Amino acid sequence: MNQSKSIKVIKVGGAVLEDAEKRSSFLKAFSGLDGLKILVHGGGRTASEIGSQLGIEPHMVEGRRVTDDQTIDVVTMVYGGLVNKQLVASLQSFDINAIGLSGADGNLIRSSKRPLTNGIDYGWVGDPQEINSELLASLLESEIVPVIAPLTHDGAGHLLNTNADTIASVIAVALSKKYTVDLIATFELEGVFLDVNDPSSLIPNISEKEFSELKAEGKIHSGMIPKLQNAFNALHDGVNTVRICKFDQIKSIHGSSIQI
Amino acid sequence: MNQSKSIKVIKVGGAVLEDAEKRSSFLKAFSGLDGLKILVHGGGRTASEIGSQLGIEPHMVEGRRVTDDQTIDVVTMVYGGLVNKQLVASLQSFDINAIGLSGADGNLIRSSKRPLTNGIDYGWVGDPQEINSELLASLLESEIVPVIAPLTHDGAGHLLNTNADTIASVIAVALSKKYTVDLIATFELEGVFLDVNDPSSLIPNISEKEFSELKAEGKIHSGMIPKLQNAFNALHDGVNTVRICKFDQIKSIHGSSIQI
Repeated sequence: MNQSKSIKVIKVGGAVLEDAEKRSSFLKAFSGLDGLKILVHGGGRTASEIGSQLGIEPHMVEGRRVTDDQTIDVVTMVYGGLVNKQLVASLQSFDINAIGLSGADGNLIRSSKRPLTNGIDYGWVGDPQEINSELLASLLESEIVPVIAPLTHDGAGHLLNTNADTIASVIAVALSKKYTVDLIATFELEGVFLDVNDPSSLIPNISEKEFSELKAEGKIHSGMIPKLQNAFNALHDGVNTVRICKFDQIKSIHGSSIQI
Repeated sequence: MNQSKSIKVIKVGGAVLEDAEKRSSFLKAFSGLDGLKILVHGGGRTASEIGSQLGIEPHMVEGRRVTDDQTIDVVTMVYGGLVNKQLVASLQSFDINAIGLSGADGNLIRSSKRPLTNGIDYGWVGDPQEINSELLASLLESEIVPVIAPLTHDGAGHLLNTNADTIASVIAVALSKKYTVDLIATFELEGVFLDVNDPSSLIPNISEKEFSELKAEGKIHSGMIPKLQNAFNALHDGVNTVRICKFDQIKSIHGSSIQI
C-alpha cells in the first residue's frame, strides 16, 4: 500500500468536448493539473450526429444507448477514434504525454455483455468486471497520461459500449487499492443545483442521506441520479473524494463535493 | 546495444482486414508468431467506404490519399477507431495482450505536414520525423503487443494521415538501433511476381540491382514500387531482414526476401 501517492481521475462529457471554446478551456485546465492524472471522456452527441449522417438513428432507453451491430461500429469510430485521438493530439500540443486507450487496449477493462434488463436488450453494452490497474499505474509512473474512451471488451473479441461515468468510477475504485484517488466529474454546470435556474441553489456538499431525500422529493434531475449514485458507490469502494464541477474549475474547490 | 533480442514488425493492409476469412487467417498467423512483435495496419478501403457513406469521396493522387479537413476526421475514425480497436479486441480473444496506438499516443510518431509536392497539396498528410521507440520497447518488455494505426501527429494538435508501409518501415528502423528487427509486409499475394498471372514467376530474392532493372523494364507493378523502395531504405538503415509475403504465411520462409 502506497497511500501517499495521489491520482486524479477526471471525467469530461461530450457536450463540453463538442464546443470548441469549452473544449479548449477544459484542456487548458486539465493540462494545468499537477500530479498523476487520468482523463475519461464521453462523446455521445458526436456519435449520434455521425450515426445520423450514416443513416443510423440513435435509440435511447432511459438515457442509455441501445447498441446494435451498426451502432457499436459508430461508437467505436467516434469514441475510440475521432474523440479519443483528437484529445490525445491536443494534449500533446500542451506538452502532456497522453495515450489513448479503450477498455480493449492492454486488456484495460473487461466487461460482461449486459443481460436483458426489464425485458430490454441493450445490445453491445458492457458492465465492467475487471480492471487492469497495473497498466494504468505503469503508464502513470512513466509520466504518461491515460485518456480513456467509453468502450470496453468482453475478452471474446467484441467491443462493448460502456457509460463514461461508470468507467471513471470503476477506474477510480480500482486505483484506490494502491493510491489516494480523487474523482472529479466535470460538466457544463457549476455543480449540482436544487434548481438549475437559480445559481444560488448550488449544493456545496451532498451526503447520501440528502441525496435520498432530494430524490424522493423529485428535486434531482434524472440525468444527475446515476452520476450521484456512481459517486456514492465510488466513495463506499475506497475513492478518497468525489467532486462534481464545471469543466474549467477542476483545479479549484468549486462545485459539489459528494460525501458519505 | 542488445543485438540478441529480436522484434518482428508485421504490416497488414486494408484489403486483408476487410475480408472476414482472410482477416481471421491473418490474426491466427500473427497470434502464432513467437517472440516480440508489432502490428502495423492499413484500412484505406474501409475509410473510402465510410467516407462515401458520409458523402466524402476519396481523392487519390498517385496512390496517395489527399486528406482535407473532412477526410482526416474520417481516417481518424476508421484507422484509429474502427479498424484499430477491432483488431485489438480480436487479438485479446487470441490471448495476445494488444494495445492500439496512433502516432499521437505516447508521442509515438511525430511527423511534419507534407509541403506542396509537385504543386500538389496532400492536405493533412504527415512524413515521420521522430519515433518514440522507448515507448514501444517498454510495452514489448511488458509483454504487450503494439498495434499501430497509420496516423501520426505534428505536435501542434493535428493528426496526420501517414502511409502504413512507411510507418512499418520507420518503426522497424528506429527499433533496429537496439534490436534485431525483421520487417514482414503481408498482402494478398504470395510475394513479388514478374507476372502476377504466372504463379511460377515469384521472385524469391530481390536485390536492389534487380529491382532497378525490373523497374526500368516496366515489369514491377506501380503499387509495388514504393513498397520495395521502403524495403531497401529499411535495410540500408539497419533493419535485419525484409520479407514481402502472403498474410497467412508470415511464420514460414515463403514470399519474396528483399536484399541489399
